[in-house]
Amino acid sequence: MSIRVVAFDGDDTLWHNETRFNLTQSALRDLLRRHVPDADVDRHLAETEMRNLSLYGYGVKAFTLSMLETAIELTQGRIPTEDLKVILGWGKSMLGEPTELLDGVEDALLGLVPRYSLLLITKGDLFDQESKLARSGLAELFSGVEILSEKNVDTYRAVSKRHGVKPEEFVMVGNSLRSDIAPVLTLGGRGVHIPYPVTWQHEQVAPESLPTAGWYRLDSISQLGALLEAIDQPSPIGA
Amino acid sequence: MSIRVVAFDGDDTLWHNETRFNLTQSALRDLLRRHVPDADVDRHLAETEMRNLSLYGYGVKAFTLSMLETAIELTQGRIPTEDLKVILGWGKSMLGEPTELLDGVEDALLGLVPRYSLLLITKGDLFDQESKLARSGLAELFSGVEILSEKNVDTYRAVSKRHGVKPEEFVMVGNSLRSDIAPVLTLGGRGVHIPYPVTWQHEQVAPESLPTAGWYRLDSISQLGALLEAIDQPSPIGA
Repeated sequence: MSIRVVAFDGDDTLWHNETRFNLTQSALRDLLRRHVPDADVDRHLAETEMRNLSLYGYGVKAFTLSMLETAIELTQGRIPTEDLKVILGWGKSMLGEPTELLDGVEDALLGLVPRYSLLLITKGDLFDQESKLARSGLAELFSGVEILSEKNVDTYRAVSKRHGVKPEEFVMVGNSLRSDIAPVLTLGGRGVHIPYPVTWQHEQVAPESLPTAGWYRLDSISQLGALLEAIDQPSPIGA
Repeated sequence: MSIRVVAFDGDDTLWHNETRFNLTQSALRDLLRRHVPDADVDRHLAETEMRNLSLYGYGVKAFTLSMLETAIELTQGRIPTEDLKVILGWGKSMLGEPTELLDGVEDALLGLVPRYSLLLITKGDLFDQESKLARSGLAELFSGVEILSEKNVDTYRAVSKRHGVKPEEFVMVGNSLRSDIAPVLTLGGRGVHIPYPVTWQHEQVAPESLPTAGWYRLDSISQLGALLEAIDQPSPIGA
């Protein structure tokens, strides 16, 4: 069936995100090493984030709170308050940074706008995501924006209903097999996976666990227009 | 014109919210008094929240981060780390608390469901609001849920467009003149103000600044059904 709607993930698909988190996490490692040289900061932070996920959800504010908790716990409260203030400041810097687009994003979207309706479907903190979109300069290219607290079959189904689009007419483009591709395939839609160099541990799934048909992998968003043209089957007359 | 859609604010309209913030804020006052007996905690926290609003938005996570910042600043870093851990814990407690409905809410909504489409239009943290709604037991009464980062004329216009409802067919019910009533009146809709005993400073506006027509004030949501029946003008035949 003909493609009507092409939807995009935001973080690490249109703009850089995980690298910002990684840079901050590396700064946290350096800061805590001065107090607890042998601690496994990465592991402790990952565990704290997972434990807090059902209360905090995703996003920079959740990350900042989990960094503070990790810093206090790993040092058994011995971390100076000044250092906690530094961590609070990192969170603010992340929230205020310019939205840095991935290479080729703007051209790719401009090429698709005349042919498809474009949706942005992101996950995470509502306020932070809206602010990133506003700073991206891309907002007017999208006919709709959906910010979800979680990306799964139910939430994608609700989006497709809200926008009156059948799963077969829908292609989702994103960097996460778990959030952007797997649930869309289950619904009967198609997916285009464009990996980002860094993937948050929580988002990793084995590609073998996915169906073999209905999704494609690209190295760059610049190849997307050609791929969509190749897979777009015009509906038969009368269908 | 006939009323088709009745929309409700969530916090302090359907469920208690501000009292939870006030209780926590009062605990923060007590905690900081031990370190800085003369500090004006309320004023400093309010200023910190306002300064952070454009980065953090609304919600418990934003409030927790601003409490931590206030505690560090007011004590000039002398607050023990253990106390900061206590503040982190308050945030988690607030996020995990059961959703406590206001008196009469469930009956009022059940009475309206057969006659109108009900929408929930809340502001704040996406994850927290969805979680509160899920715990409220009210989710299935609403035909749509909108969680906005800010409630103003533009965002209400987008909601009315998304749900295909004209402002004249739309009534918004809420406790905040600033967020729930004023922008809806500007759009051409109607409002029902049900004050909550406590209003966050940021939400206060003078009732005199609002138009005199198009909105009503009730003491309790239990009176809402009768009010709507009284103001609902059936559309003339052929209109």
